[in-house]
Amino acid sequence: MNQDYIQPNNWSIIEEGFDAERVKSSESIFSIGNGAMGQRANFEEQYSGSTFQGSYIAGVYYPDKTRVGWWKNGYPEYFAKVINAPNWIGINVTINGEALDLATCKTVRNFRRELNMQEGWLSRTFEVTLQNGIDLKVNAKRFLSIDMDEVGAIQYNVTALNTAADIIFEPYLDAGITNEDSNWDDKFWNTLSVNSEGSQAFILSHTMKTKFHVCTAMQTELSLNGQKLNETPSVTKSEHKISFTYTAKGAKGDTVTMTKFGGYTVDRNHDKNDLASVAQKTLAKAAALGFDQMLAHQKEAWTKIWKMSDITIEGDVKAQQGIRFNIMQLNHTYLGKDARLNIGPKGFTGEKYGGSTYWDTEAYCIPFYMATKDQEVARNLLEYRYNHLEKAIENAEKLGFKNGAALYPMVTMNGEESHNEWEITFEEIHRNGAIAFAIFNYHRFTGDFSYIPEKGLEVLIAIARFWKQRATFSTLRNKYVILGVTGPNEYENNINNNFYTNYIAQWCLNYTLETISKMKEEFASDLIRVIDKVKLTEAEMSDWEQVATNMYYPYSEEHNVYLQQDGFLDKELITVKDLPKSERPINQKWSWDRILRSPYIKQADTLQGFYFFEDQFSTEELERHFDFYEPFTVHESSLSPCVHSIQAAKLGRMEQAYQFYLRTSRLDLDDYNHEVEEGLHITSMAGTWMSIVEGFGGMRVIDNKLSFDPKIPEQWDAYSFKINFRNQILKISVSKTDTTFELEGDHAMAILINGSEVTVYPQDVVKV
Amino acid sequence: MNQDYIQPNNWSIIEEGFDAERVKSSESIFSIGNGAMGQRANFEEQYSGSTFQGSYIAGVYYPDKTRVGWWKNGYPEYFAKVINAPNWIGINVTINGEALDLATCKTVRNFRRELNMQEGWLSRTFEVTLQNGIDLKVNAKRFLSIDMDEVGAIQYNVTALNTAADIIFEPYLDAGITNEDSNWDDKFWNTLSVNSEGSQAFILSHTMKTKFHVCTAMQTELSLNGQKLNETPSVTKSEHKISFTYTAKGAKGDTVTMTKFGGYTVDRNHDKNDLASVAQKTLAKAAALGFDQMLAHQKEAWTKIWKMSDITIEGDVKAQQGIRFNIMQLNHTYLGKDARLNIGPKGFTGEKYGGSTYWDTEAYCIPFYMATKDQEVARNLLEYRYNHLEKAIENAEKLGFKNGAALYPMVTMNGEESHNEWEITFEEIHRNGAIAFAIFNYHRFTGDFSYIPEKGLEVLIAIARFWKQRATFSTLRNKYVILGVTGPNEYENNINNNFYTNYIAQWCLNYTLETISKMKEEFASDLIRVIDKVKLTEAEMSDWEQVATNMYYPYSEEHNVYLQQDGFLDKELITVKDLPKSERPINQKWSWDRILRSPYIKQADTLQGFYFFEDQFSTEELERHFDFYEPFTVHESSLSPCVHSIQAAKLGRMEQAYQFYLRTSRLDLDDYNHEVEEGLHITSMAGTWMSIVEGFGGMRVIDNKLSFDPKIPEQWDAYSFKINFRNQILKISVSKTDTTFELEGDHAMAILINGSEVTVYPQDVVKV
Repeated sequence: MNQDYIQPNNWSIIEEGFDAERVKSSESIFSIGNGAMGQRANFEEQYSGSTFQGSYIAGVYYPDKTRVGWWKNGYPEYFAKVINAPNWIGINVTINGEALDLATCKTVRNFRRELNMQEGWLSRTFEVTLQNGIDLKVNAKRFLSIDMDEVGAIQYNVTALNTAADIIFEPYLDAGITNEDSNWDDKFWNTLSVNSEGSQAFILSHTMKTKFHVCTAMQTELSLNGQKLNETPSVTKSEHKISFTYTAKGAKGDTVTMTKFGGYTVDRNHDKNDLASVAQKTLAKAAALGFDQMLAHQKEAWTKIWKMSDITIEGDVKAQQGIRFNIMQLNHTYLGKDARLNIGPKGFTGEKYGGSTYWDTEAYCIPFYMATKDQEVARNLLEYRYNHLEKAIENAEKLGFKNGAALYPMVTMNGEESHNEWEITFEEIHRNGAIAFAIFNYHRFTGDFSYIPEKGLEVLIAIARFWKQRATFSTLRNKYVILGVTGPNEYENNINNNFYTNYIAQWCLNYTLETISKMKEEFASDLIRVIDKVKLTEAEMSDWEQVATNMYYPYSEEHNVYLQQDGFLDKELITVKDLPKSERPINQKWSWDRILRSPYIKQADTLQGFYFFEDQFSTEELERHFDFYEPFTVHESSLSPCVHSIQAAKLGRMEQAYQFYLRTSRLDLDDYNHEVEEGLHITSMAGTWMSIVEGFGGMRVIDNKLSFDPKIPEQWDAYSFKINFRNQILKISVSKTDTTFELEGDHAMAILINGSEVTVYPQDVVKV
Repeated sequence: MNQDYIQPNNWSIIEEGFDAERVKSSESIFSIGNGAMGQRANFEEQYSGSTFQGSYIAGVYYPDKTRVGWWKNGYPEYFAKVINAPNWIGINVTINGEALDLATCKTVRNFRRELNMQEGWLSRTFEVTLQNGIDLKVNAKRFLSIDMDEVGAIQYNVTALNTAADIIFEPYLDAGITNEDSNWDDKFWNTLSVNSEGSQAFILSHTMKTKFHVCTAMQTELSLNGQKLNETPSVTKSEHKISFTYTAKGAKGDTVTMTKFGGYTVDRNHDKNDLASVAQKTLAKAAALGFDQMLAHQKEAWTKIWKMSDITIEGDVKAQQGIRFNIMQLNHTYLGKDARLNIGPKGFTGEKYGGSTYWDTEAYCIPFYMATKDQEVARNLLEYRYNHLEKAIENAEKLGFKNGAALYPMVTMNGEESHNEWEITFEEIHRNGAIAFAIFNYHRFTGDFSYIPEKGLEVLIAIARFWKQRATFSTLRNKYVILGVTGPNEYENNINNNFYTNYIAQWCLNYTLETISKMKEEFASDLIRVIDKVKLTEAEMSDWEQVATNMYYPYSEEHNVYLQQDGFLDKELITVKDLPKSERPINQKWSWDRILRSPYIKQADTLQGFYFFEDQFSTEELERHFDFYEPFTVHESSLSPCVHSIQAAKLGRMEQAYQFYLRTSRLDLDDYNHEVEEGLHITSMAGTWMSIVEGFGGMRVIDNKLSFDPKIPEQWDAYSFKINFRNQILKISVSKTDTTFELEGDHAMAILINGSEVTVYPQDVVKV
């Protein structure tokens, strides 16, 4: 646990004091990104202590060979993983012949790191005494530009405090990097050329196998006390690396500054032959603007982001800091500009989970992006899956499905399955439902039906076809059953009739049929085009209806609840509170078989169904199921507390809702799971946002209207959030005594407050 | 399929004609071994075509690092795998400057390979025309000595047919070998020294990590037309290799012979510092005996083996050849001399399945070894597990079991688990039952109870403790259930209440209690010693009884059968005959989830229980269950047909029994599964033996007597087998008209024939 390590602060993440043990954790927490690239908060200068180096480029991955003990038919031959990209931030510093290295210097004082969330930059200041006796002060600031997303900028200031000093800066590019998790000793990058021109340097390289071409580039300049020096650096080149050497003589108290602009151009955006020339121009433009002007633009860009997406919390600094940290890191990861990209569970902050796309995007992230960005962003996320439809069909074919049935991959970079645990890849099929649900959710929120005739319907049909084929008719039960699945609760594998899976399968079938039916009237020509393209028959649709109408659900009369799966009641039903603390987390303490035969639930499963399809169950039903399942839930997935927080709030259990909220919002800042050094839990951060908006704020969309049922945790004085609903921004402010609604927009908006309709007018305030 | 490729022959496996496509398959089929070492039938001379080189030393393995996508608590860090040992058979041959290589010479004629099963040797003869026009005849014979099991001998004759020729032999040792399946590019062997002395050479090396020290050695001699030449070879040494060069001038028609003795000494049997000197003496002794005398001893040794274990079949050469091939290969793999060794599923014929010990030994192999060897051999196999008891307890502890509960590993070399698929390692726990059953079976067959007080009881108690802890009480059913297992049918994973597992668990508990009860009277002091050692309490035993008495079994009233597991009837019950041929084998055609949710059974599961515990079910019950389950059985395990053959024979379905027999007995010779090139299915060969003895012969042990119910397949004229029962050998000969029993021994033996007791006297013949 990191508790009380990060300074409480409304707008900044601040670390004070240097602790070598925390370097890797802080490298994660202070990560920065701009949607196109991102990096861990590695030091610019040499650091010989324990560190986890990571710089990542959106959409650039490597297909690692699948190796398993017992090969199973249908496994992907390769799985895509995020790879560490060439390092462009490095600036080695030598003072009177001694390398500046926080691991080897005599003392480090006044070390302070700040991630300024309001303005979008990272800084680091410290003083050191080197082994050679020189006292130095260092002040480094960097950011990745939101506006010019191929560029980042670093200003690195060194002041010799007690004497004059010879200061050598060696800014470099290094393409000879590896992955932390490169088990197989494969080489991931191939360097094509290493060049320099004046104060610019370029390394052209491509990833092995995937052949993503990247130009890593830098432009550097040296200043003395703020005055640029026109020094031409000497150049050192090796196979994978290029560095410039700048030598400066600083008098005692002089500040010598290395300013470095750097970044990547990639062949996703440019012709691969133009990468160096584009980089050359982009860097020149950045350098012409200069560090300060770039930084001013950065602040403006972040001001815009916060204007749409900020959540304020009064009376609870840690909660305030937590939610802003989550919102910032989500924006670091994905800004929604490019439908070819998606939201990796670790973003650009680590290597785990392969940087790939999971159902997290549809289940947890889309609501955040819908409400805090323009609606094209969410649409881009839907299109990402539409663009992968063909591969999802191929994936289903590998598993024996026919006739255009699609199974979206559990984990993917390019539409192909990238996971090879059979119980996940082949059986955690509920993910297919989330893809369809996101289409429904997008339409519900934005009111934009146009996506469905254009693209969504094809996806829905392919998913419906999958569910139809995946269900089997049980003569014993005279119902359709779905055998051999893993539900959202991954602590059960190969189970039969998982409530959530059966429910979302049935829902997908019904929703697809309803959508088709709706289109018959309003979008007949689109419907005909799609039906023609995918060769959908009446007989097929009638089969879907059969399956949907006769879906089986395990139910316990005794407990009056749907069972999570067949046989759930055979387990020893000991609740989590009676499980010794020493046995938890069970995923670290117990062997897999023990976990599987226990009743313990990793994350919302039956309750996830109640969350998605809330309007199809009564509050009493929710309460019964919550009371039955939550006591068995260990919340060992970062995606678990948020759903429970929302449901607890709905049930009026505000203290429980607040506890769940805390657990999700400061998961990484307080390092609850002792693993933040591996990277941040990006996708669950969107769940934190939902906890406030949907949980405390009680926001829903009902009949094309925003609806609220605001509550406030006892610990808070007030909170506010903004919702971009159909191109108008509604700000909701909740205090202990009242709730106000303010609208930025051009026309009146009818909303529901605690079930009653109220109209909010632009630039007006409604208080209730 | 290889059908009709191997020549039908009662006593030999013969291949005629050279087919490069079949080299790897034949390398498996013509494998030889002597229990201490074994090798694939690789060519001695250089071969640049496709080949799978393999030479293996019993008990010498390597712990390969476990690498999985998603680490699960309790996995072994390393898993042991069989490794390819240094090559000592190599003899490169150069004729007038051209290397003899069957892949590059102009023509190959009269290629013939013979594995002589009666005498225990392998030969290869062929004629070639080299690119340089020379016609050669080659005749090579080799064997691994049964008597001196550290030595093998090769006689390699070359005759230039059409001209005089300069013949160079380069016999060598090569420790620079790799594994076919060395995925991780690890180096398995470390060479310590490479030396020679006169015509002997030695390479000392050890395996990495496990540090098994091995001396690979050879002694060579050159002869011309049968006359030994006292030529001193020149020596070439490199880091991992040593070779001798002999040059001979052969006149047209002269036969030049390289005789090579070689093999391994290992530190399991000698001090590691003595390995070279032991090898030196052993080779000198072998060379002094000479090839012909060694071969004569080899014939005698095999005569003894056949005397105890031969099965004759008249009227069906292929069946005769098949069963002898199986018996021979079992003897190649394990001769029972060393309790530290066991029977790998691929023996010394390939790398798959890691050369490790599986429950195959207890379930399939022990009956063969009990009946065809002295009883110490089976006892050695039991002791192997006793010696691993401590590690089995540690293994159970890793999975959360306590108080001395043992879970024997699914796969092992040294007692540690060597497998890391969770559904197998953690869940295929029925294997623990087979370990206990083997103790019971050994006592039933041999009448030797002494093993139980000495060693067996401790094993039984530890296994009983496991089952007690592994069962959970279901309040719903008011019974004990066993959740989350994989039964013998590995086409089901993580199922609840597998009939076989529950039954063998219950049986283990009862058998342990009965054994303790029995010992109270006759072996009280042993009992006290063991109870004291393992701290067994009355309360514990009473718990065992509780679990055993209240074990739950899924049962179908409709079908009147025990269900293989909970929920079996939810499946789409389409029988195998209605499954298109194009979909089979399902393990190659279907993805794993499809297999799991299908009703298809890989190998006997419920029926395996009926096989082990036959006397606890009526024939009608067997018939019902056979009729219910066999139609869903795809027999995709080599261990499946034999049990079904035995049961079909018992049910009087002789044609079906015969078909199952054929499928098991010539599995490798006819390469049913298109995979023989990977190695032979050694453990299932013991099942073939059971098919004849227990199936057709109907042999059982009832109340300390052998019992028979002989039947004969229509396709056979007669068959016979021998049973070593309590130190007397009973020969049973079955023809279409009668069965005769002959006893080699010193006292009368009462046996049951078709249920009636008959006494057979030594050197007498009983005909019925």
